[in-house]
Amino acid sequence: MSNTATVRRSVVLKRRPNGSPRREDFEIIEDAIPSPAAGEAVTRTIWLSIDPYMRGRLREQQTYAQAVNPGEVMTGETVGEVVASADPRFVAGDVVVGARGWQTHSVTPGDRLTKLDRHGAPLSAYLGVLGMPGATAFRGVTEILQPKPGETVVISAASGAVGSVAGQLARRAGARVVGVAGGAEKCLWVQDSLGFDDCVDHRSLDLRAELLACCPNGIDAYFENVGGMVQAAAFDLLNPFARVAMCGMVSQYNEAEFPPGPNLGFVVGKRVQIQGFIVSDKPEKIAEWRKLAAPWVADGSLIYREDEVEGLESAPDALAGMLGGRNFGKLLVRVGHDVK
Amino acid sequence: MSNTATVRRSVVLKRRPNGSPRREDFEIIEDAIPSPAAGEAVTRTIWLSIDPYMRGRLREQQTYAQAVNPGEVMTGETVGEVVASADPRFVAGDVVVGARGWQTHSVTPGDRLTKLDRHGAPLSAYLGVLGMPGATAFRGVTEILQPKPGETVVISAASGAVGSVAGQLARRAGARVVGVAGGAEKCLWVQDSLGFDDCVDHRSLDLRAELLACCPNGIDAYFENVGGMVQAAAFDLLNPFARVAMCGMVSQYNEAEFPPGPNLGFVVGKRVQIQGFIVSDKPEKIAEWRKLAAPWVADGSLIYREDEVEGLESAPDALAGMLGGRNFGKLLVRVGHDVK
Repeated sequence: MSNTATVRRSVVLKRRPNGSPRREDFEIIEDAIPSPAAGEAVTRTIWLSIDPYMRGRLREQQTYAQAVNPGEVMTGETVGEVVASADPRFVAGDVVVGARGWQTHSVTPGDRLTKLDRHGAPLSAYLGVLGMPGATAFRGVTEILQPKPGETVVISAASGAVGSVAGQLARRAGARVVGVAGGAEKCLWVQDSLGFDDCVDHRSLDLRAELLACCPNGIDAYFENVGGMVQAAAFDLLNPFARVAMCGMVSQYNEAEFPPGPNLGFVVGKRVQIQGFIVSDKPEKIAEWRKLAAPWVADGSLIYREDEVEGLESAPDALAGMLGGRNFGKLLVRVGHDVK
Repeated sequence: MSNTATVRRSVVLKRRPNGSPRREDFEIIEDAIPSPAAGEAVTRTIWLSIDPYMRGRLREQQTYAQAVNPGEVMTGETVGEVVASADPRFVAGDVVVGARGWQTHSVTPGDRLTKLDRHGAPLSAYLGVLGMPGATAFRGVTEILQPKPGETVVISAASGAVGSVAGQLARRAGARVVGVAGGAEKCLWVQDSLGFDDCVDHRSLDLRAELLACCPNGIDAYFENVGGMVQAAAFDLLNPFARVAMCGMVSQYNEAEFPPGPNLGFVVGKRVQIQGFIVSDKPEKIAEWRKLAAPWVADGSLIYREDEVEGLESAPDALAGMLGGRNFGKLLVRVGHDVK
């Protein structure tokens, strides 16, 4: 995809997936690259972020966002290069984050775009460790979990874009941090590279016993990304006055009907706080997080890992793979290249 | 029971109940009225409070308190008259709250006793509206639900000692308050006497539809006393950013195994806060509440209702009745009389 292209390609939802999304649920359409109206900019996509919340957008029923309907372009955050601007704050050649859509080119009101520094962190980082997933971890840990030195914090999906940051933040706060991840390779990375104190493979035959072995003093704070059996095991071990940051329950996103959950009697007896949150409710937190974390990324003290797939047409399979736990690190689709 | 009695009667747990407690699970034993050691006082019980938490104390497994074991006197808060004191702060004839036990006479460290004013509220009120249940409602509403004017607040067990106060506090805060109670008589009282905006009979054939009809704008805050189908119906109607004060789940207290609960996916999407609490974690709140609410009780603006049963030997049946929803208002056992 060069700067002189005239055709835009977009991934459009064809039909709502039944279970795991499949390539056949989407189709690629082509049209002319649009021109910006006043106040808008047109960007050429370099990176497209693939995130678990996207499965929710494919459902007809929504709780906090608009559904993506059949015939509409699939939604997703991108980093791109401005190719045409009718907003005086942007000129062709700028790189920006904030445009959306599984497409090679997006039209976006300038108010939603943030200009990035090509000499700062790698551009992809603004979709992961320095972007929405990083800010999600930041809010969950600082606003809800509030770990104290010596407490035990459990992070599910610990090798993922959110969990990897959440655990490192809890460690910086002085907590003992235990991850839960899928498979030996991820667990090894969570411990050796991220520096978590321990990590449990959620595919273990006796997850509860393994988690208990890693949390001999119980669990004081739990960062929930997955639901299902991991949730059940973690909830069983919660200590009095435990906090639970409810960020997502990816293990059930492909299910048509959600299974029953835990009996909540323990919430009373243990005075547990279970708090749901969505990062976009406080968009100002993303800028705050970027400012705080950029030096940590620059000095290498905040570790992150990216999992890159090639080409816009790979996005549906990438989403399906993420929902099955097959990515390893922040999942990104390379849609184009930064030619500067 | 006169002041010159020499025999003490106590209700002792004989065996752990299987399901609803029965009279046969307890026995009455007699011994001599004890003398106080230094710093203690001996009280003659006037009122014994019967509260839902007591069923939990009969289980072997405890989360925040000590179990009552077979052979031990059953626990419960009382108002009584000091008959002997080895604490200089109390003299025979004082009425106090804070002694515990299903018994005619209790020995208690003076530090746990609070002297009451015979010329203030009726003594029984210090076990209900001005006591632990009232303070429980106060904490749940002011610390967790934090109702705003125009919001919809739902209170389960609305005619009970806690729910009746919680709903009146939410109304004082300007919220629209909907109760859930068992039966037409209780619902009528909740609306006509307590002034709730509406009340749903939890025995309705279609509880969810009835609750929806009373909450056309959804539920912003829910005070949970009961669990089960009422919880399921209320959770279904929670609005974004709803708060849930988890005070108890009395509908399952007699169950050996607790049933599954709600799938918690909605907690994320709706950013719900579910917060458990136990009033005794902040004992100072009881004094704060008494001070705040005493004028409201005196001027009749805070309504309460008591359900009195006669005689210590009635306590086991009273507890069983409460767990089955057969009391109507704060349940009290009259163990003795105030002879002054």
